[in-house]
Amino acid sequence: MDELVLTTFDWVPAMPRGFVRDIRVRWALEEAGLPYRVASTPFQDRPAKHFAHQPFGQVPWLLDGDISIFESGAILLHVAERSTKLMPADPRGRSEVIEWLFAALNSVEPAVLPHAIYEFADDDTDTPGRQQLRAFLDKRLGHMEGVLAQREWLAGEFTVADILMADILRLVERFGELEPYPASRAYVERATSRPAFVKAHADQMAHFAAADKDKDKDKDKDKDKDSV
Amino acid sequence: MDELVLTTFDWVPAMPRGFVRDIRVRWALEEAGLPYRVASTPFQDRPAKHFAHQPFGQVPWLLDGDISIFESGAILLHVAERSTKLMPADPRGRSEVIEWLFAALNSVEPAVLPHAIYEFADDDTDTPGRQQLRAFLDKRLGHMEGVLAQREWLAGEFTVADILMADILRLVERFGELEPYPASRAYVERATSRPAFVKAHADQMAHFAAADKDKDKDKDKDKDKDSV
Repeated sequence: MDELVLTTFDWVPAMPRGFVRDIRVRWALEEAGLPYRVASTPFQDRPAKHFAHQPFGQVPWLLDGDISIFESGAILLHVAERSTKLMPADPRGRSEVIEWLFAALNSVEPAVLPHAIYEFADDDTDTPGRQQLRAFLDKRLGHMEGVLAQREWLAGEFTVADILMADILRLVERFGELEPYPASRAYVERATSRPAFVKAHADQMAHFAAADKDKDKDKDKDKDKDSV
Repeated sequence: MDELVLTTFDWVPAMPRGFVRDIRVRWALEEAGLPYRVASTPFQDRPAKHFAHQPFGQVPWLLDGDISIFESGAILLHVAERSTKLMPADPRGRSEVIEWLFAALNSVEPAVLPHAIYEFADDDTDTPGRQQLRAFLDKRLGHMEGVLAQREWLAGEFTVADILMADILRLVERFGELEPYPASRAYVERATSRPAFVKAHADQMAHFAAADKDKDKDKDKDKDKDSV
């Protein structure tokens, strides 16, 4: 089996660390036990070849032999199809996982994302549009709470859909907004206690921390230059 | 082959007509030439069985034999796998379609959706968060314009990914915001000129118009009662 290559940024600022989307792929690859290595692409001054792999200039992308895949959802579906551990093979089970995978990415994340943008912008202006955005989020979280109060994982055993849904709800938890949803909090806790997540998270943090050290070295070099 | 059953609302207000997401499924089914019929679920007072099929109380869902599928992305992927007309069978071609399908739903639609919410709320307050939301949309549309300036369809021939991407960009066009992006406008025009879209759109409009007539009949009945 070819080694898979996961590409992420060489460095990111402190705020997104632990939440850069390569974590979804690391997590899935750890769960699946597939061999992979991590490669870097510049965060600053993104080269043209970055856009050839990821047309929005984002990360991650995954190389599997001569196939390059972008979009964390597409990558996770690909990984789930290469393993028996993240998605059942029977049509009904497979279909259930896929619908929840899309639900995470298209019914829950689009409600969470604008909220995150306002949080990052430190903007709590109350306008009609903003109220609608908040109502949209509350409604989606309310429905998820009802679902998660009745099951351990979204589609039977733990699957690739849980990786996405838990990673998205984790961002809501970060902003302290998951408080009214105890079943959702317990679900995030359950998912992120898995050894594969713990390792994926630690690896991402270490990857960016190593880049800080390199930056410091560059600074030292610059200092040396200045002092010459 | 079992007849597929597509469920949508029995009625919706005027504004979303032509944009209710069952149009994506109608369009795909028309392109694929698969036999299907359309069923209705109440828009007002959504029953518990609605949530059993679609946990967020939205539409559409698709019945294929004893499998019920929600999320337009999951449904479209399912339809594409049942037909040879909406996705190539070779791994590389298939992978390309799937990444663009996710790109439409997770990289483009989440940027368009908050904008649509503000438009519907008639809210043009200028705040830091709102500016970030707008920058997010402009950036994603800018990248899509670069892509669409260089190709007729997203992944070789017309595929299920184009159904999603064109339906999402069509909403931007509706708000008059696609003006600065000529290649994207031409793409939407190209996609929505296809006979399968024209039929899907007309069928959705007719479906909701028929519901208006039923409502009028009900009103007449009520009038009769009142006059008795």
